[in-house]
Amino acid sequence: MIKVKATVAYDGSGFHGFAVNDGVRTVAGDIESALAKITRAPVVITCAGRTDKGVHGHGQVISFEVDESLDPGRIERSVNQLCRPSIVLRDTAHVDPSFDARFSATWRRYRYRVLAQPRPDPLLHGRVWHVPEKLDLPAMTLAAAAMVGTHDFASFCRRAKAGPGEPEASLTRTVLDAEWLSAGGTDDRILEFWIRATSFCHQMVRSIVGTSVDVGLGRIDPASLPAILAARDRTAAGRVAPPDGLVLWEVGYAA
Amino acid sequence: MIKVKATVAYDGSGFHGFAVNDGVRTVAGDIESALAKITRAPVVITCAGRTDKGVHGHGQVISFEVDESLDPGRIERSVNQLCRPSIVLRDTAHVDPSFDARFSATWRRYRYRVLAQPRPDPLLHGRVWHVPEKLDLPAMTLAAAAMVGTHDFASFCRRAKAGPGEPEASLTRTVLDAEWLSAGGTDDRILEFWIRATSFCHQMVRSIVGTSVDVGLGRIDPASLPAILAARDRTAAGRVAPPDGLVLWEVGYAA
Repeated sequence: MIKVKATVAYDGSGFHGFAVNDGVRTVAGDIESALAKITRAPVVITCAGRTDKGVHGHGQVISFEVDESLDPGRIERSVNQLCRPSIVLRDTAHVDPSFDARFSATWRRYRYRVLAQPRPDPLLHGRVWHVPEKLDLPAMTLAAAAMVGTHDFASFCRRAKAGPGEPEASLTRTVLDAEWLSAGGTDDRILEFWIRATSFCHQMVRSIVGTSVDVGLGRIDPASLPAILAARDRTAAGRVAPPDGLVLWEVGYAA
Repeated sequence: MIKVKATVAYDGSGFHGFAVNDGVRTVAGDIESALAKITRAPVVITCAGRTDKGVHGHGQVISFEVDESLDPGRIERSVNQLCRPSIVLRDTAHVDPSFDARFSATWRRYRYRVLAQPRPDPLLHGRVWHVPEKLDLPAMTLAAAAMVGTHDFASFCRRAKAGPGEPEASLTRTVLDAEWLSAGGTDDRILEFWIRATSFCHQMVRSIVGTSVDVGLGRIDPASLPAILAARDRTAAGRVAPPDGLVLWEVGYAA
């Protein structure tokens, strides 16, 4: 068997999230079905980030094992033939057997897009969060800056239930950079949030975006962000942004 | 009766073009059905540009007559309630009775997007023309420049059949500006074509884009564009680009 790595782009609108889940259509489920057809054997894929229902992928990374006789370029063409237009693989190649799309990753970068104009845009439906009110971008930039560094993100994460007797999982994460900016050009009505962290806990990007937008609307003072983080209490932060605007953009690996 | 003007954005993917056409779903058909429900009377709309099947709208303009008792803001909210997410009206307002969305327009601006990268992007499916080969943007810029001015665009237009004894319609049009540029930012893999003309003949933008891309691929010499125009022969130009990347962006009216 050989290990294969691939980068995956997908339109999350038609899927119930990335991870395989019985009875519903998922991105991993479609890719694994295609791989099983091509390799004539069951294939289990590992991913860098298990995105939620409705969240999109631009640079998701997966790894899986296949028989040595199979050419990665041929696998890529066949998966794309079976899964397009919703899922597209690129840069499919052999990697060292020790490579794991999840555990070898050193950081993940997400992009979130907010459409800041009075009316929704049919051409961006399912791709942005439409916020009709005026947003204060400099205040949102301050909110984003407060996230950078190593913090316990309990105020911005949905905590997974620990089993009986199990310790609660740590929600401490390191945000490497986070910023809000205007997409510019003819898309200047789109505000983009870019965030890169070693890893993310559940709903972390969407909670930070929801809170940033509440800051942009004047409902939360940007100066209160350090206190919201310190509270380690999910009710201290603002709302959770919808999945539509979120894209797993890029995953970093040690060279 | 009063005259109403509205700007319309739509996702053309699910429609068989803008103009009403029996037995198929069209943008005008959906808007007229909504208006008939709201006004309880048949309403016929006029548009600035009858876009083809699969072509999108950002700043299409329509005009129609309704009973004086109806508030434009209420009409807009009701139409959007009935037609979203595929169609969204904005800037709905009373206008002078002499206003006509088509005949009062002094220019139309279209945007066309080409995705220039090896693999398609699921998040841009139906919104761009995916061209996997490398494109020569400076050569495409030269091709675009050759279109500016008043020309007979017979080489770039699908001619409507003249009835028996009818003279052939003129295909002379004035292009005010035309340029290719990179969308920039994180969308630098997108090439944008912007063109503004007093009016367009059928398939004119898509023919100019298809020919520009053939120039970008090295199949047509950009220096031959004036000769292709002068030939007034549809077979002289390159192919017709697919509708996916085309958006009627804006319509101009005399102040």
